[in-house]
Amino acid sequence: MTSGVRGHVPGGAVLSQERWARLAWSRIVEPETVSTRDSIRQHGAVDALGRLLADARADVGGPYGQRIETLDIDRARAVLDRLGVRVVIPGDDEWPLGLDQLRTPPICLYAKGECELSVAEGSVAVVGSRAATAYGLSVAADLGEGLVSRGVTVVSGAAFGIDAAAHRGALAGGGPTVAVLARGLDRAYPQAHEGLLREIAGHGVVVSELPPGWAPYRQRFIARNRLIAAMSVGTVVVEAGLRSGSLNTAHVARRLVRHVAAVPGPVTSVQSAGCHELVRQTGATLVTDTGEVLDLMGRLSLDAVGPARAPETAESELDDVGRAVFSAVPVRGGADLARMQALTALDTRSLLSVLGRLCVLGLVVRDGETWRKVPTCARRVTG
Amino acid sequence: MTSGVRGHVPGGAVLSQERWARLAWSRIVEPETVSTRDSIRQHGAVDALGRLLADARADVGGPYGQRIETLDIDRARAVLDRLGVRVVIPGDDEWPLGLDQLRTPPICLYAKGECELSVAEGSVAVVGSRAATAYGLSVAADLGEGLVSRGVTVVSGAAFGIDAAAHRGALAGGGPTVAVLARGLDRAYPQAHEGLLREIAGHGVVVSELPPGWAPYRQRFIARNRLIAAMSVGTVVVEAGLRSGSLNTAHVARRLVRHVAAVPGPVTSVQSAGCHELVRQTGATLVTDTGEVLDLMGRLSLDAVGPARAPETAESELDDVGRAVFSAVPVRGGADLARMQALTALDTRSLLSVLGRLCVLGLVVRDGETWRKVPTCARRVTG
Repeated sequence: MTSGVRGHVPGGAVLSQERWARLAWSRIVEPETVSTRDSIRQHGAVDALGRLLADARADVGGPYGQRIETLDIDRARAVLDRLGVRVVIPGDDEWPLGLDQLRTPPICLYAKGECELSVAEGSVAVVGSRAATAYGLSVAADLGEGLVSRGVTVVSGAAFGIDAAAHRGALAGGGPTVAVLARGLDRAYPQAHEGLLREIAGHGVVVSELPPGWAPYRQRFIARNRLIAAMSVGTVVVEAGLRSGSLNTAHVARRLVRHVAAVPGPVTSVQSAGCHELVRQTGATLVTDTGEVLDLMGRLSLDAVGPARAPETAESELDDVGRAVFSAVPVRGGADLARMQALTALDTRSLLSVLGRLCVLGLVVRDGETWRKVPTCARRVTG
Repeated sequence: MTSGVRGHVPGGAVLSQERWARLAWSRIVEPETVSTRDSIRQHGAVDALGRLLADARADVGGPYGQRIETLDIDRARAVLDRLGVRVVIPGDDEWPLGLDQLRTPPICLYAKGECELSVAEGSVAVVGSRAATAYGLSVAADLGEGLVSRGVTVVSGAAFGIDAAAHRGALAGGGPTVAVLARGLDRAYPQAHEGLLREIAGHGVVVSELPPGWAPYRQRFIARNRLIAAMSVGTVVVEAGLRSGSLNTAHVARRLVRHVAAVPGPVTSVQSAGCHELVRQTGATLVTDTGEVLDLMGRLSLDAVGPARAPETAESELDDVGRAVFSAVPVRGGADLARMQALTALDTRSLLSVLGRLCVLGLVVRDGETWRKVPTCARRVTG
């Protein structure tokens, strides 16, 4: 542990060095800060934090100077205790493995609710415009209810419009549902959804990578969207104008080789224009009801990434192509597509498809343009 | 000419043997009678008719006995003159070459209107449900007007609902538009569209493969649909229930390697369910406006199959793959996919795509599961 950093916090449980360091990191840097992730990958969260603090002491006017100066983990923990918010870090049982496929996985997650965050495994994200139509709200609520009634958790952003309708539908179906916020969990966002968020926490979980007190900005909304996309096996866009943030979620999902689906609507509705564009331009699958969403995403969501699946089982159930690709993925360092193509002789599309499946199975993790095996010890074994 | 068949009809112009024979054929057999097409392909319309008449004389109770017995070409021609209906046969300048790609091309076409049937070249079919919604009618009318205002003829079936809206839109845009009927041209069908059909004939052409007096039956509607699909470079389905006949038109278009597009609508509308199925199950392209229809079909419709394009030009403008496939297609006998794949080493999808383009260019004709070159003399040269 770095000098000046204590593992024991008065008035609270003992924090592991790792948890302590990640809690500190999350109060210093913005989400999606690539250099932070690189440093943490290279040195581990604890040593990387030590380097950051040493740099800050040497350069008092640095970018994170003030945040480091005012960093008070004791107080932060007291706030979390008061709010009933827990900190989840990679390696925790409830950490959603899908997040590790992001270029910038969250350093930690703040979570509040009756369910463990592992309910997000095998989940489907249902997202869309704030300025939704009655048609869109109705479809989103139906999908939300339909999915949870088939055992699939609904993830969304708790925003006005489609997001809220999806959560409400899921709650009507008995939950669970996961709300991923773009602000700290000290306040409801949007404020008007205080009651809805309380209900979500009561039948699921509300989560954010931002510490309490951190307010939502445009960049933080965009950062939040990547968590929704990465946490679920696929994203359904119910309504979206051509500039809707939910299209951003869909694009992240596509980059992560997740399923992307869009609900059509009248061509005369600007709120469906983004959905139609997704189908036309990016090959998103047109879906019209819960059954079609599950046809597309169901097998994965219900079977392949369930927490009851031991990795040995996942590995042993790969087909020949899956095994060939899996054996071409290195444990350390990562391999890019070209290298794996040389080893497998698969075309790019097939290779990406198989890699996507291996990622969803938690066997492989993507890191930018390279892939590597998830170490066996890091794979969840609960089955 | 066969005994008993005269080429000169009192009171009318001299008919070629071919035209006379085809006129007779069309009054004897149903559309889509495969054996007839095989016989005409093998022996030519004139000799095949001779054989049919000889067989009928030998077997008075045969399937076509009564129609042959009551056949009166003089009277038929008088009726056509009175109705202002002309007979169009393969080889005529206005014969739509796309029809030759059908397994059962029409033996002849009855046409009435100010335009030659060649306005159908490069056309787009806009079809859909009779029981359309206000939304569908509005979209169909917009597409009809948008297409003709961009110089693209609109083909449809003059039925209630989407068909009529597409024609009306096209007329509002100044035409031309082509109505393909499932009954003879002696009467309007549906009766309520008498005024609409008169207007279509005034700014386009009304056409049928059925002789005057022949009434519409289910099988004749289905037969009519194949003409709509084959006559156009692509079919747009605006609204369709899951059992709509317009889906049949779309499937024929797909089999003929024409473009198939579908307009989405609310998932809560049964009249859009067929469109969504087309996109989901058959890979039809989702389109939301005229621009997107033309993005899909425009280049072909405006450039590649225009009547001003000489076949030498079409052939000389093929790219390397196009030339390779074209040279693999035999002039006689036809080759199936497997044979051409052996010669071109292309995958099925690529090969079908190139063959589709060659068909649209009028260089190649599909006959069931085989393809053959269109003889140079049969290709239209007007450029």
